[in-house]
Amino acid sequence: MSYASVVDILEGKIPVDETVTVRGWVRTRRDSKAGISFINVHDGSCFEAVQAVVPAELPNYSNEVQKLTTGCSVAITGVVVPSQGQGQSFELQATKVHVYGWVEDPDTYPMAPKRHSMEYLREYAHLRPRTNITGAVMRVRNTLSQAIHRFFHENGYLWVSTPIITTSDCEGAGEMFRVSTLDLLNVPKTDKGDVDFSQDFFGKEAFLTVSGQLNVESYACSLSKVYTFGPTFRAENSNTSRHLSEFWMVEPELAFASLDDVADLAEDMLKYVFKAVLQERPDDMEFFAKRINSEAVSRLEAIVNSNFVHMDYTDAIEILKGCGKKFEYPVEWGVDLQSEHERYLAEEHVGAPIILKNYPRDIKAFYMRQNEDGKTVAAMDVLAPGIGEIIGGSAREERLDILDKRIEEMNLPMEEYEFYRDLRRYGTVPHAGFGLGFERLVAYVTGVQNIRDVIPFPRAPKSAEF
Amino acid sequence: MSYASVVDILEGKIPVDETVTVRGWVRTRRDSKAGISFINVHDGSCFEAVQAVVPAELPNYSNEVQKLTTGCSVAITGVVVPSQGQGQSFELQATKVHVYGWVEDPDTYPMAPKRHSMEYLREYAHLRPRTNITGAVMRVRNTLSQAIHRFFHENGYLWVSTPIITTSDCEGAGEMFRVSTLDLLNVPKTDKGDVDFSQDFFGKEAFLTVSGQLNVESYACSLSKVYTFGPTFRAENSNTSRHLSEFWMVEPELAFASLDDVADLAEDMLKYVFKAVLQERPDDMEFFAKRINSEAVSRLEAIVNSNFVHMDYTDAIEILKGCGKKFEYPVEWGVDLQSEHERYLAEEHVGAPIILKNYPRDIKAFYMRQNEDGKTVAAMDVLAPGIGEIIGGSAREERLDILDKRIEEMNLPMEEYEFYRDLRRYGTVPHAGFGLGFERLVAYVTGVQNIRDVIPFPRAPKSAEF
Repeated sequence: MSYASVVDILEGKIPVDETVTVRGWVRTRRDSKAGISFINVHDGSCFEAVQAVVPAELPNYSNEVQKLTTGCSVAITGVVVPSQGQGQSFELQATKVHVYGWVEDPDTYPMAPKRHSMEYLREYAHLRPRTNITGAVMRVRNTLSQAIHRFFHENGYLWVSTPIITTSDCEGAGEMFRVSTLDLLNVPKTDKGDVDFSQDFFGKEAFLTVSGQLNVESYACSLSKVYTFGPTFRAENSNTSRHLSEFWMVEPELAFASLDDVADLAEDMLKYVFKAVLQERPDDMEFFAKRINSEAVSRLEAIVNSNFVHMDYTDAIEILKGCGKKFEYPVEWGVDLQSEHERYLAEEHVGAPIILKNYPRDIKAFYMRQNEDGKTVAAMDVLAPGIGEIIGGSAREERLDILDKRIEEMNLPMEEYEFYRDLRRYGTVPHAGFGLGFERLVAYVTGVQNIRDVIPFPRAPKSAEF
Repeated sequence: MSYASVVDILEGKIPVDETVTVRGWVRTRRDSKAGISFINVHDGSCFEAVQAVVPAELPNYSNEVQKLTTGCSVAITGVVVPSQGQGQSFELQATKVHVYGWVEDPDTYPMAPKRHSMEYLREYAHLRPRTNITGAVMRVRNTLSQAIHRFFHENGYLWVSTPIITTSDCEGAGEMFRVSTLDLLNVPKTDKGDVDFSQDFFGKEAFLTVSGQLNVESYACSLSKVYTFGPTFRAENSNTSRHLSEFWMVEPELAFASLDDVADLAEDMLKYVFKAVLQERPDDMEFFAKRINSEAVSRLEAIVNSNFVHMDYTDAIEILKGCGKKFEYPVEWGVDLQSEHERYLAEEHVGAPIILKNYPRDIKAFYMRQNEDGKTVAAMDVLAPGIGEIIGGSAREERLDILDKRIEEMNLPMEEYEFYRDLRRYGTVPHAGFGLGFERLVAYVTGVQNIRDVIPFPRAPKSAEF
């Protein structure tokens, strides 16, 4: 006798008439008047549960089988047969039911088989992967992450793990968490009355990283094609559906590259990972299209088949000013675009993803490469219909004199950037990269509204349970 | 004219007589008396550099080409021809040399072409990937990480990102870093004089995780086959070649599994990733065998072709006591094994990897499954020749009553384990998993002695630069 996963049975990988054992959790039990029970068992291997038809003749039928409730764990041995029921390919004619674990007080089982709100499920982050929706989200999340690694690997990129703990607070991308082992009831002080971080674990004030970009640039400037895929942090008091205190970022960095090179890379990567989801997870995507967002599948297909439209920021401002639409935030050259503007451009004006390029210098980071016009930098945002910005990137300023001038103009501490300046001192090369917030990608693909529901254990202000 | 990477040229993927441009950094320049220069260019795509033969006829020959030094960045256009030199397959007959970036003061360039100590290279973590050794390490590191993801994906495991920030200090695997946004010069206090963490960012005291295991168990107990691959942290003041404050861990967790099931999984995984390195990175591995450890290749081959030997802890103690060898730490049933014991068993007694199982309960963690004998738990260590322990794992105690008793016996705070106990309350299943320290794996495979040299930016006590 051998073991089989639910997906193997449902996809016909087990020959009909063969006896196998499937192990998982009971989703539902239904007893017929004819004296048989139908037990649906899921094991996470695919969206659907497999149905086991259990005859009353089994020795533990009345004292165990008929007491099974949602969430009980079982091993059911049976013969694979074509299913009589609708929508199912194969089922099991059970010959044995073994119960591993019961549900203590089924009436209060938190994952009872009814509709739960997403807020409720979040309170049971350790049990919610047993539900249809969280199971589906996590399979799609896995497919996206595997596809990202595969895409970069096939294209010659090396995964580089940039540090999580950093003593540099100059990344400039947001508020940071402090990492320390100092005794908070007895904080050591210097003569001047400041905190004496020389006594802290790292001998300096240390933080959680907000981006791996500056670090990974040093690897691009030696190994040419690299990417990060790791956690990053923001200590911002933002309680929105689009913010997490801890989230995963993908940051490719490419040497000898222009902004257009990484714009193409972003387009290729998005199409690659969307294709992977459509091909590998049609079951979960069908569920999202039915229950969460009717365009979940069609909008991915549309993107895969589209050509991303390149547009200059300056042209976009003209379009927005002349479109006759009333925006909450007025538009003028020099302002940062809001979600309403981004979505108008992608959804109404173009109807396809847009790569918006060459933003005003003054609203962008110090490291972005200055264009000839003296006003703009080689930065881009990828705007997708239905979400707005999904990727942000830029060419990096590789000219030391111009970089230094920018650091000075922005009153940044020059001495903090010595390693970064070394990359421009020793064999500098044009290079560019982008950042993709992984949870925003998962939310977009699944249609799930709140990114707290697409990461296993979300962290947000006043919330870091489990 | 098209671009080619160094590996494409050296592996013959570019037809002879085709003109291509290669972009990278100068490793060496040698001028012949005949008036030509030989420039070796590397771009990180493989171990070797490609040689470009540059004739004096080029217009920038005397004012640029002859001034090139190690570390300068160039684009060299030329015709691909079979190499006349030894050990090289193809080279470029240059028709154009473009210089992107010079090296400011070549005499003080930190990565000058000579032997540097590993300690010296660590001080230039942003430039060391330009060296042969760090480049090779990082390519092998990438291959290992890609192979790990591929292995689990092909076997139906889902990647689960467990949280980095945790409010639980009950993981018990080591000292933890605090994560906070409290003002250290004005720490809020409760009436009792304790730190008032309710005013901290998460409303509770928060830490960096030491392991994703407890969290990922909840995913195994719903999706059956899962694994983590992410950073973990230890705030231990250990300045050794085997410790990092921040390192990456791989933690698979398998439902409906026994200790022997995950022992087999560990064996399969190690063989899979070692095979991948031998097949995909023969160039880098040849370098390690030549320069770092002469057994770097042969010991991986031996493991791939070996059968891991299963051995009980109790039997191992008898073997160690009777072997006649004098150990620094004496052996008695009940003690934890030291590296000297582990290496004797794997290297001298067996000559192959050992899976050592069923350790005394009292030296192991609370969550390990108790065996029938009442004295041991279903824990394992995988011991490899040349390194000792490389993997540690266990079956998890899935019986709530026994788990509770163990938590009480060890005086652990029961209330902190509610989510973990829920997994045993609701459809509990036998499950097991293991942990692999990723940097120890990279160090073992490459033969590099200090794990600070196999992670891009190492973090250790008093050290978190860049």
